[in-house]
Amino acid sequence: MTAYSCRNDYLKDLEDRAALPAGFAVSTAALEFSPREIEGSARMNLTLIALDEPTPLFAAGFTTNRVAGAPVLIGRKRLAEPRLRGVLINNKVANVCAPGGREDAESLLAALAGLAGGRPEEYWAASTGVIGWRLPAEAMRAALPGLAAGLRKESALPAARAIMTTDSYPKLRGAELGGGRITGIVKGAGMIEPNMGTMLAFLLTDIAVDREALRRIWRECLEASFNSISVDGDQSTSDLALIMSSGRIPGVDAADFRAALLAVCRELAADIVRNGEGVGHVIRVVARGADAVLARGAAKAIVNSPLVKTAVWGNDPNVGRIVSAVGDFLSGAAAAAGTGAADLAVSLGGVEVFRSGSFRLDRDKEASLSRYLRDCAQDPAVKGYPQHDREVLIELDLGGKGGAVEVLGSDLSEQYVRENADYRS
Amino acid sequence: MTAYSCRNDYLKDLEDRAALPAGFAVSTAALEFSPREIEGSARMNLTLIALDEPTPLFAAGFTTNRVAGAPVLIGRKRLAEPRLRGVLINNKVANVCAPGGREDAESLLAALAGLAGGRPEEYWAASTGVIGWRLPAEAMRAALPGLAAGLRKESALPAARAIMTTDSYPKLRGAELGGGRITGIVKGAGMIEPNMGTMLAFLLTDIAVDREALRRIWRECLEASFNSISVDGDQSTSDLALIMSSGRIPGVDAADFRAALLAVCRELAADIVRNGEGVGHVIRVVARGADAVLARGAAKAIVNSPLVKTAVWGNDPNVGRIVSAVGDFLSGAAAAAGTGAADLAVSLGGVEVFRSGSFRLDRDKEASLSRYLRDCAQDPAVKGYPQHDREVLIELDLGGKGGAVEVLGSDLSEQYVRENADYRS
Repeated sequence: MTAYSCRNDYLKDLEDRAALPAGFAVSTAALEFSPREIEGSARMNLTLIALDEPTPLFAAGFTTNRVAGAPVLIGRKRLAEPRLRGVLINNKVANVCAPGGREDAESLLAALAGLAGGRPEEYWAASTGVIGWRLPAEAMRAALPGLAAGLRKESALPAARAIMTTDSYPKLRGAELGGGRITGIVKGAGMIEPNMGTMLAFLLTDIAVDREALRRIWRECLEASFNSISVDGDQSTSDLALIMSSGRIPGVDAADFRAALLAVCRELAADIVRNGEGVGHVIRVVARGADAVLARGAAKAIVNSPLVKTAVWGNDPNVGRIVSAVGDFLSGAAAAAGTGAADLAVSLGGVEVFRSGSFRLDRDKEASLSRYLRDCAQDPAVKGYPQHDREVLIELDLGGKGGAVEVLGSDLSEQYVRENADYRS
Repeated sequence: MTAYSCRNDYLKDLEDRAALPAGFAVSTAALEFSPREIEGSARMNLTLIALDEPTPLFAAGFTTNRVAGAPVLIGRKRLAEPRLRGVLINNKVANVCAPGGREDAESLLAALAGLAGGRPEEYWAASTGVIGWRLPAEAMRAALPGLAAGLRKESALPAARAIMTTDSYPKLRGAELGGGRITGIVKGAGMIEPNMGTMLAFLLTDIAVDREALRRIWRECLEASFNSISVDGDQSTSDLALIMSSGRIPGVDAADFRAALLAVCRELAADIVRNGEGVGHVIRVVARGADAVLARGAAKAIVNSPLVKTAVWGNDPNVGRIVSAVGDFLSGAAAAAGTGAADLAVSLGGVEVFRSGSFRLDRDKEASLSRYLRDCAQDPAVKGYPQHDREVLIELDLGGKGGAVEVLGSDLSEQYVRENADYRS
């Protein structure tokens, strides 16, 4: 397989888009600790995102995993609080089902409130890392005074770097509108990361949006961005996507804000998929001809099929696997009713490969599809990513009514297996 | 990773267990053809399993994939026929959604009936191989006279070999009871095969069981054997499991027959999982404390998680991934109601690692679990397989009522990716 060299454009532009919205500051700190569960030492980053003034304007989405980390359990309760003042983030330890984990997190937030002002209930926690390990609460507590004293208003980039685990580059996107700004950071590395237990996303804005409107808009944006990517079908115990507004910039139209926010979230979601070291191709599935839930499910079935993923990795246009993955999904989806092979149409790279119950394949088409998978690097819109820029387009029509939904996924490489087999060792 | 050498015991014993039940004969033939879809030539095996006399005693289970092969569509109709006389099996081409595929299959069965006797509707078809290619119907028709003339009553082993695709060894199991016999053959190679579109299983017996009783027993056996294994979560377009009885041996107790049949099916199902070249460990999950459907779903969620599979491949006792996979499954299962982390108990290799919402881990336990994954070859019951003999036991208690169900899966290796990326090229 071709190795794709790092393109520097993405990293060069990062600083330009990293400005914090008005009313926010961030701080980071690093610490060493000895895990109780293994021999040796480990390193953790702490990140604090804080508002100048507590705000009622915040919204969050969480993992739905029944085994949820302590920060998720705490956050779900914090949603009902009148105000939010900041969030304390750590990497390396996910704080999931560890003895005393919830008490550890609550006591760190109380200590933080003592240092940075406000009530403990105005602070959120977010953790990512190994599932099952205990937080090194004493070492973290010792780092809090420096963290609180180090708040800076210039750039979100230190925070985007500090929340990384095995991410291979910081992920940061921004937009400006109506004199205000949206800045988003995210961690989570498509192919190799969900095992550490997390996609964390933090969206900061100074644009004032009514609390209830913000919560509705946030739900819609999550569905069409972070909930429309899939790397290996595993949902972590700790996913959190939190938006906070300082409310400094009034008068922006809610529809304009929603569109800008969705664009930022979609860019961040794509960054996650593109991140994995093992990714050779991003797979973009555009599905239509059914209600959005069914269409999204069928699209996810394609990007989650190990057989589709390995074929794409090998530049093999094995369209039988694509159609089979859809058929298997439909057999388990009550809403699919009688939808069957006769209703499906599938294209790969814009070339029709299946329609009206039959494959549309011949030797020339097979050869040209192989070249497409090998060379599909040429869409200018996907250039400039650090790892690679190959993207495969699969279009699916389910034969009924309904507009297009998009899902991003990735291929499955030997490197994915290698990295995930060795991860904790 | 250690490479496990081929143990010869399994293959040495094959001939001993290959005897056909009374009333059956098999024949095989090979042919070369030029696929319309690619350059060059390909090789196909034909297999005929025939009864001396047509029988009303048969039952079948099929894939539920909405995109189903022509033989599946034909077989579903044949279930209502009063009698079955034989089945014509080919490998290399799955005959799924290929133009004219159903007509090709029907016309071959008609030609076979002309040669071997009986009506066309008394013959079944079964195909496995590349999805989307057309059957080489002319070349197959030309081979039918030789196939029909070559029927032999001695051994099922030639059929077990001829139905293989990328299987690395023939899979054949048998049992004797009440003066009669059950002989089963199956194809399907855990890790690398479902892409060719199929698990095919053929169970032959001379024990007389009432048609309706046979159909009920067959459903129950399928659920607890072939439907309780999972290699990569992809269900093919062509799965078929067919049982036929010549009815020569009356008077066997139905419960005894059911028990023997289930044992044979479970051995064949385990053979499928063990078969893959890329398999380093078989993963056996025993789940209890919920109704069978929920318990089986949770167990499959574990063996289908890429993160669990890669960790097991790497001998990493990453129990966080196991618990997370269960929690993720429960979040999507309506029947799970309020089941959460507090209800779960998980053991790995007999060692408790999670209970009452908390991990039970320390440095010594982690080290001993790593050794277990590396060395878990010592269960005498799993010795003697060609590829390897490592099996990992994961036990899950969901905290409610319900007896144990078992699911077999496999780890995920770099070799799986390599073989599936390159398969059609």
